[in-house]
This record gives sequence, structure tokens and C-alpha cells, in this order.
Amino acid sequence: MPKDKESKVSFNLKTPKGTKDWSGSDALLRDRIFSTIADVFKRHGGTALDTPVFELREILAGKYGEDSKLIYDLQDQGGEICSLRYDLTVPFARWLAMNPDVRSMKRYHIAKVYRRDQPAVSKGRMREFYQCDFDIAGTFDPMVPDAEILRIVTEVFEELGWKGRYNIKINHRKILDGLFEVCGVPADKIRPISSAVDKLDKMPWEDVRKEMVDEKGLDGAVADQIWSYAQKKGGRELLDGLLADETLTANANAKAGLDDMALLMDYLEAFGVLDRISFDLSLARGLDYYTGVIYEVVTEGSAPAVQKGSAEAQAVQKKAKKDKSKTLEDDDRSNDPTLGVGSVAAGGRYDNLVGMFLPKAQIPCVGVSFGVDRIFSITKARIEREKSAEALRSSEVDAYVMAFGGKGFTGMLKERMTVCQSLWNAGVKAEFSYKVKPKLPQQFKAAEQVGVPFAVILGEDELAAGKVRIKEMGLEDGHPEKEGVLVDLAALPAEIKTRVANKRRGQDVQEITEQLEATKVEA
Amino acid sequence: MPKDKESKVSFNLKTPKGTKDWSGSDALLRDRIFSTIADVFKRHGGTALDTPVFELREILAGKYGEDSKLIYDLQDQGGEICSLRYDLTVPFARWLAMNPDVRSMKRYHIAKVYRRDQPAVSKGRMREFYQCDFDIAGTFDPMVPDAEILRIVTEVFEELGWKGRYNIKINHRKILDGLFEVCGVPADKIRPISSAVDKLDKMPWEDVRKEMVDEKGLDGAVADQIWSYAQKKGGRELLDGLLADETLTANANAKAGLDDMALLMDYLEAFGVLDRISFDLSLARGLDYYTGVIYEVVTEGSAPAVQKGSAEAQAVQKKAKKDKSKTLEDDDRSNDPTLGVGSVAAGGRYDNLVGMFLPKAQIPCVGVSFGVDRIFSITKARIEREKSAEALRSSEVDAYVMAFGGKGFTGMLKERMTVCQSLWNAGVKAEFSYKVKPKLPQQFKAAEQVGVPFAVILGEDELAAGKVRIKEMGLEDGHPEKEGVLVDLAALPAEIKTRVANKRRGQDVQEITEQLEATKVEA
Repeated sequence: MPKDKESKVSFNLKTPKGTKDWSGSDALLRDRIFSTIADVFKRHGGTALDTPVFELREILAGKYGEDSKLIYDLQDQGGEICSLRYDLTVPFARWLAMNPDVRSMKRYHIAKVYRRDQPAVSKGRMREFYQCDFDIAGTFDPMVPDAEILRIVTEVFEELGWKGRYNIKINHRKILDGLFEVCGVPADKIRPISSAVDKLDKMPWEDVRKEMVDEKGLDGAVADQIWSYAQKKGGRELLDGLLADETLTANANAKAGLDDMALLMDYLEAFGVLDRISFDLSLARGLDYYTGVIYEVVTEGSAPAVQKGSAEAQAVQKKAKKDKSKTLEDDDRSNDPTLGVGSVAAGGRYDNLVGMFLPKAQIPCVGVSFGVDRIFSITKARIEREKSAEALRSSEVDAYVMAFGGKGFTGMLKERMTVCQSLWNAGVKAEFSYKVKPKLPQQFKAAEQVGVPFAVILGEDELAAGKVRIKEMGLEDGHPEKEGVLVDLAALPAEIKTRVANKRRGQDVQEITEQLEATKVEA
Repeated sequence: MPKDKESKVSFNLKTPKGTKDWSGSDALLRDRIFSTIADVFKRHGGTALDTPVFELREILAGKYGEDSKLIYDLQDQGGEICSLRYDLTVPFARWLAMNPDVRSMKRYHIAKVYRRDQPAVSKGRMREFYQCDFDIAGTFDPMVPDAEILRIVTEVFEELGWKGRYNIKINHRKILDGLFEVCGVPADKIRPISSAVDKLDKMPWEDVRKEMVDEKGLDGAVADQIWSYAQKKGGRELLDGLLADETLTANANAKAGLDDMALLMDYLEAFGVLDRISFDLSLARGLDYYTGVIYEVVTEGSAPAVQKGSAEAQAVQKKAKKDKSKTLEDDDRSNDPTLGVGSVAAGGRYDNLVGMFLPKAQIPCVGVSFGVDRIFSITKARIEREKSAEALRSSEVDAYVMAFGGKGFTGMLKERMTVCQSLWNAGVKAEFSYKVKPKLPQQFKAAEQVGVPFAVILGEDELAAGKVRIKEMGLEDGHPEKEGVLVDLAALPAEIKTRVANKRRGQDVQEITEQLEATKVEA
């Protein structure tokens, strides 16, 4: 910076609209969610794929319909015309088309995507946000990879501690198409009517019907017949009922979809997760490229818990509308978990997308995308309710090495450094004060601020005798170890490791006990 | 995509210039490097900070001198004017200025940065690449955080297995400035002459001298006196020699820098890493914003291993020039580790950068940035030389569940699914074939392709008796367990876990043995 400009510093100190910094305990919690999800992906043989944050503009063109206007373009600075990626699915399809030798792949990708939407930051709707995708590409026997994707979805939410708090809705594009055909929807109206059905979790049936009949010109009787199907949800008994519906099974699409669904349910049973799934004929999913099974994960207590489009749902919605701007529709990505946050994961089978890039590289795919920002908001709110101090720390440090002494105290800086070194060598996360002569209360305050579980205290006489003191932070008065315990300096790293492990185990036991309690209340 | 366009698909199937996809074993190895580095950062109390990939353009303006022309701009689509970030340091400084309540912080950030440079992809010079930064912000007693940064650098390279293969060069801006003053460099020529010194690891002294004298108008005798200092490198003995140089210590800048260096060496000794550091008076570092200690990590065998600017260095350079385009200068980020790849990490103290955003938020900082792409190239080349199969796998799956049978074999798909489920439940990474009736050789081939260490084989009779077979892949003929071992189905997850752990331990032992052997050869 030229000297003459230094004086008139006037920056707009902010991040761009719709973007945010992640720091402190939020960043730590988000990283934990990422690693929980990535661990599940790896357990199922997922391999990482990382693509550039921008793509040639022509790669993204024609993939997102009218949402294409939300794509961020890079300035033309000479050379190629590029845009920031809008999702992770199209770059994956582009990669598959570029690598036609790869005939099967399980890939995962956790990264930011960009949408130049009107941001609603207070509701968590951002222009830069994370997606977390797992997809299986390849030609396999029907429904086997589809079932594994759903198994993965359950593992992710179980490991995030959401047991009993989520619901996986599934449906099948062919069942929907067949059902529309059977009801008498003209071929050219099938996609628009499907879009209308997709709004049933946000609008009452009356409004959806109005859209079908008034806007889209559907016969009222046909609409009502769709409604008679779209209300159905359940498990195997629903499937059996539909398979017994001869009008339906006479339709080739419906029959193929129902057979797929029967196979899927068998496999989900073998995977031990059939009870987590709800077959829901109102689930339609917006994106055009789905060709088979589709699914959406909603949190318990969110809109779909009440009968969709029912009088009850309308009442809830009216109540929500009164409550300022919190309609169920606005509630998308809300930070308020009590009202529900819509879907937290979604996906389906898309067998034709790769072929849009290179017909001869066509490869069928099935996948799921987790909405990490929503998952983060819900998890954070739960932790705050439970006041779980451990989970809200901004660092993971296990020990704070401090020193104290009487008159003529030197600060023992090098001794603190040497002890820290022995802890780091053993892989223990440790910190110390950067002051040459820190006061003891200062050091305790610093340790408390980062929520360190253990203090390691050096005293001149004790150290001369080869001893240091370990003090667990936050013990109550009267606790036998309130004043800490003296241990051999050589044994310090092992002692700290054992104590940290025991403390964690204690917290796990407490967590499990609490979960069992919670289950009892629900039961 | 409108139907009429579907027929004329003609995409330019590539990633933008200077960018690449990361997949397979490369992605896995890179992620391992990231997590090794992040683990060290966390061990020292580092907390994650994640900033948007683009910033308001005015935030980046005036920070990078003439390199500002390499900044990627977003197109003006109405609204704010933004650019992709050029490094992670300026966004960190912007964050600190926005959060003036934070008076001390250890932050790390692993993310992509963007430079619209002429890419030299064959040499690994990219437009999108990763940086891996750790910085300590705050006002502390002198040199304590600086020493911890250098300790972190050693931990990172030790944990990456580079023991004895890297060298940390350190110097101090004030020592350089004082030295230039003592040699008689006019005040207005100090920065340009410093830039010339910075080129000593790429150019012979004669050329650097020419630049100083002919281009920058320095007196020849002054240049020669600089050279008499710039050749010095060493440890404490060099420092003691300089501290005994009364002409030098009479200069306030030099004295302050040397005192800092003495303190730093004391602290590095307490941290047990003094022997990894080389005090090198020719290290200057290009960036203007450094104000104190500076450092650069080079790999052993790269240019600095020979006396910089010496006749020997010139000979090496001439030889390299003959060898097609591989001059030492071009060698920057080369994939050829034998010729060296220049620096793999660098950093220093910058006390005034945050104040450029908001003078009242001024906060001193010291940090380091790891060049992960270079670290990746060197690590990958080493693994390939050592043909370490484990490290080059593209997934981390531990077990492949397969089935075989005679006539009337059903494929046992659901049984394979159920067994997989029991492994997943126990946290074991497992896969199975998505075919309903796969042939045994197909299944073995699939297992071999992903490098899975164990096969779990289901046979109808064995399964009926509650048994499954575990077969370690790749055992030699005649090995007692060549045909596998039968275990109880209920004990399978525990058996696999034990065997995977034992196999890893075996590999670790082998690795340690090899490392010891390597040390012997070097000694």
C-alpha cells in the first residue's frame, strides 16, 4: 500500500452479503458434524472427490432451469468464462463424463456451493453454504445401492444423536407418474402436476387443488382422485395395498415403481432400517432429473408430522402466520428447531444426468445430499438447551500448564515450555501462558476461558523433587482431589491421557443415561 | 434443458485452466496430510476459522502490491463488488479487525486460494490451490508465540515422516535492516536491496550483485560487504559471533533483532527443536508486511543444501538448465523431489497488517503457511518409491463381504447385507457386491481393486452352522491361514477389528524398522 494512502483507511469491514465467517465453538461443532458424516461415508467405501469451486459456465448451463439466474459468474478477465458451482451433483456428473473408464464409484464431497439468492441471513438462508453429498454411480442390480444410500442416511442421523427425531419419507418417480396416468392426468401435465403435489408440505390441499385446476387446467375430479392417493403414507401394508390395486398395477410405470419399492423394502429390512422409513405418496421432489426412488428427511415436529394439507396443518400454519413472519413456508432453514426446519437431507436416483454431458458416458446414479447448515442449527440448539459445556468449547485443549511461586518467582517459562513439550510429544493437546511471569489467577482464568479440563501446576520445590500437580478444573469444594494430585513428572503425559479418557468416558455414560431417560419419556 | 437443445450436446469437458479435480488415492493422501496438520494445530490449542471464498474487493485492495493483478474478480451482477481470496492471511486480518474484542487467538485455516497466474500445471503451479495456515494473534512477551510456531512446524514435518529431510531457515527483519544500514545501504534502497538478497536461493551471487549495483544503483563495495554477511549460516555460534560484532550491535535495529534471536533460540531449546533450525542471514522473504522473525522450510536436497550463490550452486544450476527446462528457478513446485521443490512452508511476524483495516484494532501476529500441494507431491513420490500399497488405496474399506455356493446358489444377497450391517454397526468399514448373484472371482476382483485387507466369505452350510470365513487378502501360498479361518458369526465384527488393528500395528512396526534402517544409512 502506497504511503500516501495509509492515512485515509476507510474499509467496509464485513463479509459479502449472504456469507459469513465460521469461528470458535460454531466452527468446532460444524467440523464435528462434518467428520461424523465423513466417517459414515468412509465406512461404506466412499472415496473423496474434490472439484474446483468454479466450472466453465457451459458446464452449468441448462441444468438448473429458471434457477440458473442465481449462478455467480466470474468476471471475464480474458480467457475462459467461468461460474461458481451451484451444487455438487453437476460437477460430479461432469467428472464422471470426463472419466468414462470409471464404471462404478462411491464418492463423497463436502464443500461450499454458491447461489446468488436474496439471502435471509436471520433464517440461515445464505449465498455461500455447505453441502455434504454421497452418490453411488454404476450399473447394478436394482435397488441394492439405493438401499445402501438409505442405510447411510440412517447411520448419519443416528451418529449425530438424532435417534427418534427424524423421519425418512420415500417415494418413486415411476409410481407417481403411473398414479397420475391412472388418475387421468394428460401426459403434458404430468410434470406441472407433480410440482403442485410437491407443495403439499407447504400448502393446504385446497390451495394445491386450486393450482392444479385453476392454474394448470386439470379436471377437478382428476385432482380429487390424486388427493385420494397423495394422502396415503405408511410401510409395507401401504405397499401391499397398492400392489393389490389392480387399476394401478395395470399401469406399467406404477407396476415397475411398486416392484422396485417391494425390493427396496426387502433390502432395507436386511439392513435393519425399514422401521425408519415412511412410504409417502405425496413426496414428489422438485428437480426434474430424478428417475427412480426419491427421498427426503424431515425432523420430527416439523410440518410433515401432522397430516399434510389437513385441517390440522392449516391451523398450525395460520398460527405460525400470526407469529410474525414464521409461516411454515418461510420456515425453510429456520434456526428455530421447535417449529421444524423442513428437510435436512434429500436425494434420489438420477440415471440420465451424466449422459447430458456425454451420451456415451451415460452411467446411472443414486445419491443423497445433507443440508449441513440446517443440521448444524438444530444440533447447536439442542446442545444449548442441554447446556453441554464440552460441546460448546472453541478449542479441544486437554491441559493448561501453569506455574506459581513466592517471592522472587521467575515465572518458570522454560520449565513450562519443557513440560508442554513432553505433553505434545505424547500427543496431548496442551497450552501455556505466553507471559514470562504470569500470575496464577491469570493462568487459571485463561484455562477456564478455553474450558480446559485439567491444569498442570508447576511449583519450584515440587519440580525440584521431580513432581508436578494435576488439578481437575471445576471440582466442587470438598472433593478429595479439589487441591489436585502430585504425580511424577515422567508419568505426567500418561496420567493426563488416562484422566482425559476417563472424563470422556464419564460424559459418554452420562449422555447414554440421558438418552435412555429421553426414550422413556417419549415411549 | 429445453428439449430442442438436447440433441446438440457439445460440452468442453474439462476443468477451468489451472484447476484440477482431486480423486482416488490422491484425494485420500491429501486428506491424510490435512488431518495430520490439523491434529498438530489442535494440539497447540488452535481453533478453526473459516471465511467466505470471496471478499469485498476493497478488502483485498492494496495488500499484494503488483500481484494484485492476479486477483480473480466476480462479475458485477448488481450489488457488491467481490473477488476470490488470494491468501488466508488477509481474510484473517479482516476478521480480527471486525472482532476487536478478540485480543488473542490461535487460529488455523485449511482452504483453497485463487491466483489468476499463468498456470504451469505440469509443474504443479495452479490457479486454485490449498493453503494451510496457523497464526497466533495477541500481545505477548517477546518471542514466546514465535517459538511455538516453529515448534509446530517441526511437529508437522516429523508427523508427516520427513524426519531429517527438512531444514528450517530463520532470520529477522530487524537484523537484515540493521545489517543493511551497517553496510551502508541508503534508507530508500533497503527494501529493494532486501528483495535482491531474497533471490540468492535462485540466482548466483554475481547476478544478484549485478542487480544491486547496475539496476538498483548500490555501491559495489557495499554490495560486497552485504555478501560477506549473507553467506553466514549456522546456529548459536553464528549468533554469538554476530553479538560480538560491535559494529553490528551498535546499530539499534540489528541489536534488537539479535536479542530477539537469542531469546528465540533459548525457547527453541526448551521446546527441544533448536537442532532443526538454521539461522540464515540470506533469508529475506518477499512480502513487505513482515516486521520480525521470518522463516522458510526447505526440503533436504533442494537448492539451499549447497552454499547459496556459490560456484557449486551455479554448477548445479547449469546442469539443471541442460536438463531441459528444469532450472532451479523453474523448479518451484516441481513434482521432482530429487531436485528439490523450494520451500514447503514459510511465515513470520507481521505486527501491522490488522491495523491497515482498522488502526484501533491493531494486534500483533505471527504465523506460518504450509504449501500443501508441494508437500503432497513430495509425499506421494516417496510413497510411490516405497511402493506402500496401503497409502495409495483410494478408499479405506477393511472388509469385503462375499458369498459363494454350488448349483442353485441364490447369491445370498440379503445374508451379505445383514452381515455388512453387523460390521457397520460395529464401526467396521465394509462393502459387498451390488449384484444379486455375483460370481466368487468377480467378488475377489472387486475386493482386490479397492485393496481391501480382509474378505468375509459366506457359504450356505457354514452360515447355517453360524460360522463365516475370514480370509486375509494377499497371503502367500503355504501360509497357514491362506484358506482363511472360520469364526462365529456373532464374533465377526470383533474378529475383524482385532485383525485390522494387528495388521496396522504390523505395518507400523515395519515402518519404524525401515525408518531406523534409513537413519543408519544417513548416519
